Amino acid sequence: MLKFYFNPISVNARRVWVALLEKQIPFEPILVRLDGDQFEYDFTAINPLQRVPAIVDNNFRVIESLAILDYLEAKYPMRSLLPTTPEAIATVRMVELIAVNELQPATLPLTRPFVGLDVEPQRLEVAKERVTAVMQFYETLLGEHSYFAGESITLADIVAGTLVPSLPMFGVSLEAYPQLKVWTERLAQRESWQQTTPQPEAIAAALPIVRKILEQRS
Amino acid sequence: MLKFYFNPISVNARRVWVALLEKQIPFEPILVRLDGDQFEYDFTAINPLQRVPAIVDNNFRVIESLAILDYLEAKYPMRSLLPTTPEAIATVRMVELIAVNELQPATLPLTRPFVGLDVEPQRLEVAKERVTAVMQFYETLLGEHSYFAGESITLADIVAGTLVPSLPMFGVSLEAYPQLKVWTERLAQRESWQQTTPQPEAIAAALPIVRKILEQRS
Repeated sequence: MLKFYFNPISVNARRVWVALLEKQIPFEPILVRLDGDQFEYDFTAINPLQRVPAIVDNNFRVIESLAILDYLEAKYPMRSLLPTTPEAIATVRMVELIAVNELQPATLPLTRPFVGLDVEPQRLEVAKERVTAVMQFYETLLGEHSYFAGESITLADIVAGTLVPSLPMFGVSLEAYPQLKVWTERLAQRESWQQTTPQPEAIAAALPIVRKILEQRS
Repeated sequence: MLKFYFNPISVNARRVWVALLEKQIPFEPILVRLDGDQFEYDFTAINPLQRVPAIVDNNFRVIESLAILDYLEAKYPMRSLLPTTPEAIATVRMVELIAVNELQPATLPLTRPFVGLDVEPQRLEVAKERVTAVMQFYETLLGEHSYFAGESITLADIVAGTLVPSLPMFGVSLEAYPQLKVWTERLAQRESWQQTTPQPEAIAAALPIVRKILEQRS
Protein backbone atom coordinates (compact mmCIF):
# COMPACT_ATOMS: atom_id res chain seq x y z
CA MET A 1 0.00 0.00 0.00
CA LEU A 2 1.15 3.55 -0.73
CA LYS A 3 3.10 4.97 2.24
CA PHE A 4 2.41 8.63 3.03
CA TYR A 5 5.00 10.37 5.23
CA PHE A 6 3.37 13.40 6.78
CA ASN A 7 2.80 15.62 9.76
CA PRO A 8 -0.69 16.99 10.49
CA ILE A 9 0.54 20.58 10.88
CA SER A 10 2.44 20.66 7.56
CA VAL A 11 0.50 22.49 4.83
CA ASN A 12 2.81 20.93 2.25
CA ALA A 13 1.79 17.49 3.49
CA ARG A 14 -1.87 18.44 3.79
CA ARG A 15 -2.23 19.13 0.06
CA VAL A 16 -1.11 15.56 -0.70
CA TRP A 17 -3.36 14.20 2.02
CA VAL A 18 -6.40 15.99 0.56
CA ALA A 19 -5.54 14.67 -2.93
CA LEU A 20 -5.25 11.09 -1.62
CA LEU A 21 -8.71 11.42 -0.05
CA GLU A 22 -10.28 13.17 -3.07
CA LYS A 23 -8.94 10.48 -5.39
CA GLN A 24 -9.88 7.74 -2.88
CA ILE A 25 -6.42 6.17 -3.06
CA PRO A 26 -5.80 3.78 -0.14
CA PHE A 27 -2.70 4.74 1.84
CA GLU A 28 -0.80 4.04 5.03
CA PRO A 29 -0.11 7.29 6.92
CA ILE A 30 3.31 7.45 8.60
CA LEU A 31 3.76 10.28 11.08
CA VAL A 32 7.08 12.14 10.86
CA ARG A 33 7.64 14.18 14.01
CA LEU A 34 9.19 17.49 13.01
CA ASP A 35 11.37 17.82 16.10
CA GLY A 36 13.91 15.31 14.87
CA ASP A 37 12.41 12.38 12.95
CA GLN A 38 13.06 14.14 9.66
CA PHE A 39 16.82 14.06 10.28
CA GLU A 40 16.92 10.34 11.14
CA TYR A 41 18.70 7.99 8.78
CA ASP A 42 15.53 6.11 7.77
CA PHE A 43 13.69 9.23 6.64
CA THR A 44 16.76 10.86 5.07
CA ALA A 45 17.10 7.74 2.91
CA ILE A 46 13.62 8.52 1.57
CA ASN A 47 14.00 12.29 1.37
CA PRO A 48 17.59 13.56 1.42
CA LEU A 49 16.13 17.07 1.70
CA GLN A 50 14.63 16.00 5.07
CA ARG A 51 11.13 17.38 4.64
CA VAL A 52 7.56 16.11 4.61
CA PRO A 53 5.65 15.09 2.62
CA ALA A 54 7.12 12.09 0.85
CA ILE A 55 5.46 8.98 -0.55
CA VAL A 56 6.69 5.50 -1.39
CA ASP A 57 4.45 3.66 -3.82
CA ASN A 58 5.44 0.18 -5.07
CA ASN A 59 8.99 0.96 -3.90
CA PHE A 60 9.01 4.18 -5.93
CA ARG A 61 9.84 7.24 -3.87
CA VAL A 62 8.48 10.72 -4.68
CA ILE A 63 9.30 13.93 -2.77
CA GLU A 64 8.16 17.57 -3.19
CA SER A 65 4.43 18.02 -2.69
CA LEU A 66 3.63 19.31 -6.20
CA ALA A 67 5.62 16.45 -7.76
CA ILE A 68 3.69 13.95 -5.63
CA LEU A 69 0.39 15.48 -6.78
CA ASP A 70 1.38 15.06 -10.44
CA TYR A 71 2.58 11.51 -9.86
CA LEU A 72 -0.72 10.57 -8.19
CA GLU A 73 -2.65 12.12 -11.08
CA ALA A 74 -0.63 10.17 -13.67
CA LYS A 75 -0.65 6.88 -11.74
CA TYR A 76 -4.27 7.03 -10.51
CA PRO A 77 -6.14 9.01 -13.18
CA MET A 78 -9.60 8.25 -11.79
CA ARG A 79 -11.36 11.21 -10.13
CA SER A 80 -9.04 13.44 -12.12
CA LEU A 81 -7.75 16.60 -10.49
CA LEU A 82 -6.30 18.11 -13.68
CA PRO A 83 -8.19 19.73 -16.57
CA THR A 84 -7.32 19.01 -20.20
CA THR A 85 -7.35 22.30 -22.14
CA PRO A 86 -4.04 24.22 -22.33
CA GLU A 87 -5.65 27.34 -20.87
CA ALA A 88 -7.17 25.49 -17.89
CA ILE A 89 -3.87 23.67 -17.31
CA ALA A 90 -2.09 27.05 -17.31
CA THR A 91 -4.59 28.37 -14.75
CA VAL A 92 -4.08 25.38 -12.46
CA ARG A 93 -0.29 25.65 -12.70
CA MET A 94 -0.31 29.42 -12.08
CA VAL A 95 -2.44 28.98 -8.96
CA GLU A 96 -0.25 26.14 -7.66
CA LEU A 97 3.07 27.87 -8.29
CA ILE A 98 2.01 31.27 -7.00
CA ALA A 99 0.80 29.54 -3.82
CA VAL A 100 4.16 27.89 -3.30
CA ASN A 101 6.53 30.58 -4.66
CA GLU A 102 4.75 33.71 -3.49
CA LEU A 103 1.90 33.21 -1.02
CA GLN A 104 3.64 30.71 1.23
CA PRO A 105 6.91 32.69 1.66
CA ALA A 106 4.94 35.93 2.06
CA THR A 107 2.91 34.50 4.94
CA LEU A 108 6.06 33.46 6.87
CA PRO A 109 6.59 36.91 8.44
CA LEU A 110 2.87 36.99 9.35
CA THR A 111 3.20 33.77 11.34
CA ARG A 112 6.06 35.15 13.48
CA PRO A 113 3.94 37.16 15.97
CA PHE A 114 1.68 34.11 16.20
CA VAL A 115 4.50 32.05 17.75
CA GLY A 116 5.85 34.90 19.87
CA LEU A 117 8.65 36.07 17.57
CA ASP A 118 9.53 39.67 16.65
CA VAL A 119 9.04 40.95 13.15
CA GLU A 120 10.05 44.35 11.79
CA PRO A 121 6.98 46.45 10.86
CA GLN A 122 8.41 47.14 7.41
CA ARG A 123 8.87 43.43 6.71
CA LEU A 124 5.29 42.81 7.80
CA GLU A 125 4.11 45.59 5.50
CA VAL A 126 5.95 44.15 2.47
CA ALA A 127 4.58 40.68 3.28
CA LYS A 128 1.01 42.00 3.44
CA GLU A 129 1.45 43.75 0.08
CA ARG A 130 2.68 40.51 -1.48
CA VAL A 131 -0.26 38.58 -0.02
CA THR A 132 -2.68 41.23 -1.31
CA ALA A 133 -1.23 41.02 -4.85
CA VAL A 134 -1.75 37.24 -4.80
CA MET A 135 -5.28 37.49 -3.41
CA GLN A 136 -6.29 40.01 -6.07
CA PHE A 137 -4.85 37.80 -8.78
CA TYR A 138 -6.63 34.73 -7.39
CA GLU A 139 -9.92 36.63 -7.12
CA THR A 140 -9.65 37.56 -10.82
CA LEU A 141 -8.72 34.02 -11.89
CA LEU A 142 -11.56 32.49 -9.89
CA GLY A 143 -14.16 34.90 -11.30
CA GLU A 144 -17.64 33.43 -11.21
CA HIS A 145 -16.50 29.81 -11.23
CA SER A 146 -17.04 27.36 -8.39
CA TYR A 147 -13.41 26.27 -8.66
CA PHE A 148 -10.34 27.78 -10.34
CA ALA A 149 -10.57 25.68 -13.49
CA GLY A 150 -14.38 25.65 -13.76
CA GLU A 151 -17.01 23.55 -12.01
CA SER A 152 -14.76 20.70 -10.85
CA ILE A 153 -12.16 20.70 -8.13
CA THR A 154 -8.53 20.52 -9.33
CA LEU A 155 -5.03 20.63 -7.88
CA ALA A 156 -5.30 24.44 -7.98
CA ASP A 157 -8.07 24.41 -5.37
CA ILE A 158 -6.24 21.87 -3.25
CA VAL A 159 -2.97 23.80 -3.18
CA ALA A 160 -4.41 27.30 -2.74
CA GLY A 161 -7.33 26.03 -0.65
CA THR A 162 -5.10 24.60 2.07
CA LEU A 163 -3.39 28.02 2.46
CA VAL A 164 -5.94 30.78 1.85
CA PRO A 165 -8.50 29.77 4.54
CA SER A 166 -5.87 30.21 7.27
CA LEU A 167 -5.00 33.79 6.27
CA PRO A 168 -7.58 35.43 8.60
CA MET A 169 -5.82 33.70 11.51
CA PHE A 170 -2.72 35.72 10.53
CA GLY A 171 -4.50 39.03 10.20
CA VAL A 172 -5.46 38.99 6.50
CA SER A 173 -9.21 39.45 6.04
CA LEU A 174 -10.98 37.73 3.15
CA GLU A 175 -13.79 40.33 3.13
CA ALA A 176 -12.25 42.20 0.20
CA TYR A 177 -12.37 39.02 -1.92
CA PRO A 178 -16.01 37.89 -2.08
CA GLN A 179 -15.42 35.14 -4.67
CA LEU A 180 -12.53 33.64 -2.73
CA LYS A 181 -14.57 33.81 0.48
CA VAL A 182 -17.44 31.79 -1.00
CA TRP A 183 -14.87 29.38 -2.47
CA THR A 184 -13.25 28.78 0.95
CA GLU A 185 -16.72 28.06 2.37
CA ARG A 186 -17.35 25.64 -0.49
CA LEU A 187 -14.07 23.81 0.23
CA ALA A 188 -14.82 23.69 3.97
CA GLN A 189 -17.89 21.57 3.14
CA ARG A 190 -15.76 18.83 1.63
CA GLU A 191 -14.95 15.78 3.69
CA SER A 192 -11.33 15.89 2.55
CA TRP A 193 -10.90 19.35 4.09
CA GLN A 194 -12.76 18.46 7.28
CA GLN A 195 -10.75 15.28 7.77
CA THR A 196 -7.39 17.05 7.37
CA THR A 197 -8.00 20.26 9.35
CA PRO A 198 -5.24 20.49 11.97
CA GLN A 199 -6.72 20.09 15.47
CA PRO A 200 -6.19 22.97 17.92
CA GLU A 201 -4.20 20.66 20.21
CA ALA A 202 -1.92 19.64 17.32
CA ILE A 203 -1.35 23.31 16.46
CA ALA A 204 -0.65 24.20 20.10
CA ALA A 205 1.79 21.32 20.44
CA ALA A 206 3.55 22.38 17.23
CA LEU A 207 4.06 26.03 18.16
CA PRO A 208 7.52 25.54 19.74
CA ILE A 209 8.67 23.57 16.68
CA VAL A 210 7.34 26.17 14.25
CA ARG A 211 9.00 28.84 16.38
CA LYS A 212 12.32 27.02 16.16
CA ILE A 213 12.05 26.62 12.38
CA LEU A 214 11.14 30.29 11.93
CA GLU A 215 14.00 31.40 14.21
CA GLN A 216 16.49 29.56 12.00
CA ARG A 217 15.12 31.26 8.90
CA SER A 218 15.27 34.84 10.11
CA MET B 1 2.47 35.58 -32.52
CA LEU B 2 3.29 34.48 -28.98
CA LYS B 3 4.78 37.36 -27.00
CA PHE B 4 7.64 36.43 -24.66
CA TYR B 5 8.47 38.96 -21.94
CA PHE B 6 12.00 38.29 -20.75
CA ASN B 7 15.37 39.56 -19.69
CA PRO B 8 18.55 37.80 -20.88
CA ILE B 9 20.03 37.58 -17.36
CA SER B 10 16.91 36.00 -15.79
CA VAL B 11 17.32 32.24 -15.28
CA ASN B 12 13.55 32.00 -14.80
CA ALA B 13 13.05 33.54 -18.23
CA ARG B 14 15.82 31.48 -19.79
CA ARG B 15 14.07 28.16 -19.09
CA VAL B 16 11.05 29.36 -21.10
CA TRP B 17 13.29 30.72 -23.83
CA VAL B 18 15.08 27.35 -24.17
CA ALA B 19 11.71 25.54 -24.31
CA LEU B 20 10.42 27.88 -27.04
CA LEU B 21 13.55 27.13 -29.10
CA GLU B 22 13.51 23.37 -28.41
CA LYS B 23 9.83 23.17 -29.42
CA GLN B 24 10.44 25.50 -32.39
CA ILE B 25 7.54 27.76 -31.44
CA PRO B 26 7.73 31.14 -33.21
CA PHE B 27 7.71 34.02 -30.74
CA GLU B 28 8.23 37.75 -30.42
CA PRO B 29 10.77 38.52 -27.68
CA ILE B 30 9.97 41.62 -25.60
CA LEU B 31 12.78 42.86 -23.37
CA VAL B 32 11.75 43.87 -19.85
CA ARG B 33 14.50 45.94 -18.22
CA LEU B 34 14.78 44.90 -14.58
CA ASP B 35 15.64 48.36 -13.29
CA GLY B 36 12.08 49.59 -13.53
CA ASP B 37 10.16 48.24 -16.56
CA GLN B 38 8.68 45.48 -14.43
CA PHE B 39 6.90 48.02 -12.23
CA GLU B 40 5.37 49.94 -15.14
CA TYR B 41 1.63 49.87 -15.63
CA ASP B 42 1.79 47.99 -18.95
CA PHE B 43 3.80 45.10 -17.55
CA THR B 44 1.97 45.00 -14.22
CA ALA B 45 -1.25 44.53 -16.21
CA ILE B 46 0.29 41.36 -17.63
CA ASN B 47 2.00 40.17 -14.45
CA PRO B 48 0.68 41.72 -11.22
CA LEU B 49 3.57 40.00 -9.44
CA GLN B 50 5.94 42.15 -11.55
CA ARG B 51 8.41 39.48 -12.62
CA VAL B 52 9.74 37.96 -15.82
CA PRO B 53 9.02 35.72 -17.58
CA ALA B 54 5.48 36.13 -18.82
CA ILE B 55 3.87 35.18 -22.11
CA VAL B 56 0.78 36.33 -23.97
CA ASP B 57 -0.46 33.85 -26.55
CA ASN B 58 -3.67 34.55 -28.50
CA ASN B 59 -4.55 37.11 -25.80
CA PHE B 60 -4.09 34.48 -23.08
CA ARG B 61 -1.62 35.50 -20.39
CA VAL B 62 0.54 33.03 -18.47
CA ILE B 63 2.96 33.89 -15.66
CA GLU B 64 5.31 31.76 -13.50
CA SER B 65 7.99 29.99 -15.53
CA LEU B 66 6.96 26.41 -14.66
CA ALA B 67 3.32 27.20 -15.48
CA ILE B 68 4.38 28.65 -18.83
CA LEU B 69 6.38 25.48 -19.59
CA ASP B 70 3.31 23.30 -18.91
CA TYR B 71 1.08 25.58 -20.98
CA LEU B 72 3.49 25.39 -23.94
CA GLU B 73 3.62 21.61 -23.64
CA ALA B 74 -0.19 21.33 -23.64
CA LYS B 75 -0.74 23.89 -26.39
CA TYR B 76 2.16 22.85 -28.64
CA PRO B 77 2.62 19.12 -27.99
CA MET B 78 5.03 18.59 -30.89
CA ARG B 79 8.64 17.93 -29.85
CA SER B 80 7.32 16.92 -26.48
CA LEU B 81 9.30 17.85 -23.39
CA LEU B 82 7.31 15.64 -20.99
CA PRO B 83 7.46 11.87 -20.61
CA THR B 84 4.30 9.75 -20.24
CA THR B 85 4.88 7.15 -17.51
CA PRO B 86 3.91 8.15 -13.95
CA GLU B 87 7.42 7.39 -12.67
CA ALA B 88 9.14 9.48 -15.36
CA ILE B 89 6.65 12.31 -14.79
CA ALA B 90 7.47 12.17 -11.06
CA THR B 91 11.19 12.38 -11.85
CA VAL B 92 10.70 15.42 -14.10
CA ARG B 93 8.57 17.19 -11.50
CA MET B 94 10.98 16.42 -8.65
CA VAL B 95 13.90 17.84 -10.64
CA GLU B 96 11.93 20.96 -11.62
CA LEU B 97 10.58 21.68 -8.14
CA ILE B 98 13.83 21.00 -6.30
CA ALA B 99 15.57 23.38 -8.73
CA VAL B 100 13.08 26.14 -7.96
CA ASN B 101 12.34 25.47 -4.27
CA GLU B 102 15.77 24.40 -3.06
CA LEU B 103 18.66 24.94 -5.47
CA GLN B 104 17.74 28.45 -6.57
CA PRO B 105 17.20 29.89 -3.03
CA ALA B 106 20.33 28.07 -1.79
CA THR B 107 22.49 29.68 -4.47
CA LEU B 108 21.35 33.21 -3.52
CA PRO B 109 23.89 33.59 -0.66
CA LEU B 110 26.60 32.26 -3.02
CA THR B 111 25.92 35.04 -5.50
CA ARG B 112 26.37 37.79 -2.88
CA PRO B 113 30.21 37.90 -2.89
CA PHE B 114 29.99 37.86 -6.69
CA VAL B 115 28.26 41.27 -6.70
CA GLY B 116 30.36 42.70 -3.87
CA LEU B 117 27.96 42.06 -0.97
CA ASP B 118 28.83 40.63 2.45
CA VAL B 119 27.64 37.22 3.50
CA GLU B 120 28.07 35.59 6.92
CA PRO B 121 30.37 32.54 6.73
CA GLN B 122 27.77 30.40 8.53
CA ARG B 123 25.07 31.33 6.02
CA LEU B 124 27.44 30.45 3.17
CA GLU B 125 28.17 27.11 4.82
CA VAL B 126 24.47 26.23 5.17
CA ALA B 127 23.88 27.27 1.55
CA LYS B 128 26.71 25.03 0.33
CA GLU B 129 25.32 22.08 2.31
CA ARG B 130 21.90 22.59 0.72
CA VAL B 131 23.42 22.79 -2.77
CA THR B 132 25.42 19.62 -2.08
CA ALA B 133 22.28 17.72 -0.98
CA VAL B 134 20.57 18.72 -4.23
CA MET B 135 23.55 17.81 -6.39
CA GLN B 136 23.84 14.37 -4.78
CA PHE B 137 20.13 13.77 -5.32
CA TYR B 138 20.36 14.90 -8.96
CA GLU B 139 23.42 12.70 -9.56
CA THR B 140 21.45 9.68 -8.28
CA LEU B 141 18.34 10.52 -10.34
CA LEU B 142 20.38 11.05 -13.50
CA GLY B 143 22.29 7.76 -13.11
CA GLU B 144 23.54 6.44 -16.41
CA HIS B 145 20.92 8.22 -18.52
CA SER B 146 21.66 10.93 -21.04
CA TYR B 147 18.86 13.05 -19.60
CA PHE B 148 16.88 12.90 -16.34
CA ALA B 149 13.92 11.03 -17.80
CA GLY B 150 15.89 8.78 -20.17
CA GLU B 151 17.34 9.42 -23.60
CA SER B 152 15.26 12.46 -24.55
CA ILE B 153 15.46 15.96 -23.20
CA THR B 154 12.56 17.05 -20.97
CA LEU B 155 11.53 20.01 -18.85
CA ALA B 156 13.69 18.55 -16.05
CA ASP B 157 16.86 19.08 -18.07
CA ILE B 158 15.78 22.55 -19.13
CA VAL B 159 15.01 23.74 -15.60
CA ALA B 160 18.00 22.15 -13.83
CA GLY B 161 20.26 22.62 -16.84
CA THR B 162 19.91 26.40 -16.84
CA LEU B 163 21.03 26.50 -13.17
CA VAL B 164 23.59 23.75 -12.54
CA PRO B 165 26.15 24.79 -15.20
CA SER B 166 26.62 28.19 -13.51
CA LEU B 167 27.43 26.70 -10.08
CA PRO B 168 31.22 26.57 -10.66
CA MET B 169 31.10 30.35 -11.21
CA PHE B 170 29.82 30.60 -7.60
CA GLY B 171 32.43 28.28 -6.12
CA VAL B 172 30.65 24.91 -6.36
CA SER B 173 32.74 22.40 -8.29
CA LEU B 174 31.01 19.76 -10.44
CA GLU B 175 33.99 17.37 -10.17
CA ALA B 176 32.30 15.29 -7.45
CA TYR B 177 29.33 14.64 -9.78
CA PRO B 178 30.69 12.93 -12.90
CA GLN B 179 27.26 12.14 -14.40
CA LEU B 180 26.02 15.70 -13.96
CA LYS B 181 29.26 17.03 -15.42
CA VAL B 182 28.87 15.01 -18.63
CA TRP B 183 25.21 16.03 -18.74
CA THR B 184 26.10 19.76 -18.56
CA GLU B 185 28.56 19.23 -21.43
CA ARG B 186 25.82 17.46 -23.40
CA LEU B 187 23.44 20.39 -22.84
CA ALA B 188 26.12 22.92 -23.79
CA GLN B 189 26.20 21.32 -27.27
CA ARG B 190 22.57 22.20 -27.90
CA GLU B 191 21.76 25.22 -29.98
CA SER B 192 19.05 26.26 -27.51
CA TRP B 193 21.63 26.56 -24.72
CA GLN B 194 24.19 28.31 -26.91
CA GLN B 195 21.65 30.83 -28.18
CA THR B 196 20.45 31.75 -24.67
CA THR B 197 23.75 31.90 -22.76
CA PRO B 198 23.96 35.33 -21.15
CA GLN B 199 26.75 37.37 -22.73
CA PRO B 200 29.53 38.62 -20.41
CA GLU B 201 28.59 42.23 -21.21
CA ALA B 202 24.95 41.56 -20.28
CA ILE B 203 26.06 40.00 -16.98
CA ALA B 204 28.42 42.89 -16.23
CA ALA B 205 25.69 45.43 -17.01
CA ALA B 206 23.27 43.54 -14.76
CA LEU B 207 25.53 43.33 -11.70
CA PRO B 208 24.29 46.58 -10.10
CA ILE B 209 20.67 45.48 -10.58
CA VAL B 210 21.31 42.02 -9.13
CA ARG B 211 23.14 43.69 -6.25
CA LYS B 212 20.14 45.92 -5.56
CA ILE B 213 17.72 42.97 -5.66
CA LEU B 214 19.93 40.91 -3.32
CA GLU B 215 20.32 43.86 -0.93
CA GLN B 216 16.55 44.08 -0.57
CA ARG B 217 16.33 40.39 0.23
CA SER B 218 18.92 40.20 2.97
